[in-house]
Amino acid sequence: MKKVNVAEKFEQFSDHWNPRIVGELNGQQVKLAKLKGEFIWHSHKDEDEMFYIIKGKLKIEFRDKTIELNENEFFIVPRGIEHKPIAEEEVHVMLFEPATTRHTGEEKHRLTNNKQEFL
Amino acid sequence: MKKVNVAEKFEQFSDHWNPRIVGELNGQQVKLAKLKGEFIWHSHKDEDEMFYIIKGKLKIEFRDKTIELNENEFFIVPRGIEHKPIAEEEVHVMLFEPATTRHTGEEKHRLTNNKQEFL
Repeated sequence: MKKVNVAEKFEQFSDHWNPRIVGELNGQQVKLAKLKGEFIWHSHKDEDEMFYIIKGKLKIEFRDKTIELNENEFFIVPRGIEHKPIAEEEVHVMLFEPATTRHTGEEKHRLTNNKQEFL
Repeated sequence: MKKVNVAEKFEQFSDHWNPRIVGELNGQQVKLAKLKGEFIWHSHKDEDEMFYIIKGKLKIEFRDKTIELNENEFFIVPRGIEHKPIAEEEVHVMLFEPATTRHTGEEKHRLTNNKQEFL
């Protein structure tokens, strides 16, 4: 039972596309990640995934449209939907997703990282 | 599949202790609430509850301590733990909790409100 200061947590790492777990509740995890550049197309078969923008601007491409998220906006990507996050400048994002969620979904890629790193 | 702007949602209501549902994922709900004054002591038997502070300062009393949360800080209240939120000035908070969560837990009170209000 400790409070979490999001800005302080972000000061503790600098690598991109490597989410850190900062909270767990009801089988879900709260993660913080720094994103920069293009991620890969992927989907999560059984998990909805929420992106909440703490800092910066995130584009998410879908097969039929592209959305742009600004600070204090969020988007829930439903399970099974292919998506590709793109951060032209560095973005700080808070993620909510089930503890079972794999980073790049069904894809295997050099960015795939299924370590469970707590911060 | 629509993005949610948190500030815009907060402009759409003004009452206190009456959370609005702004997102659903994996059996969980994302809610926004304005808090002012003292809530009641309660607990949620089977649900962990996350408070993320968007604006203002929230105190949460527990039986053995009191914590104070500032903007961009969050706290996860584990299931079964009695707590009492107190907002001396108005606070804007984002909540994450299972869709089954009842507002005042096992307590019945004039503040109890188990409507499911989507915004």
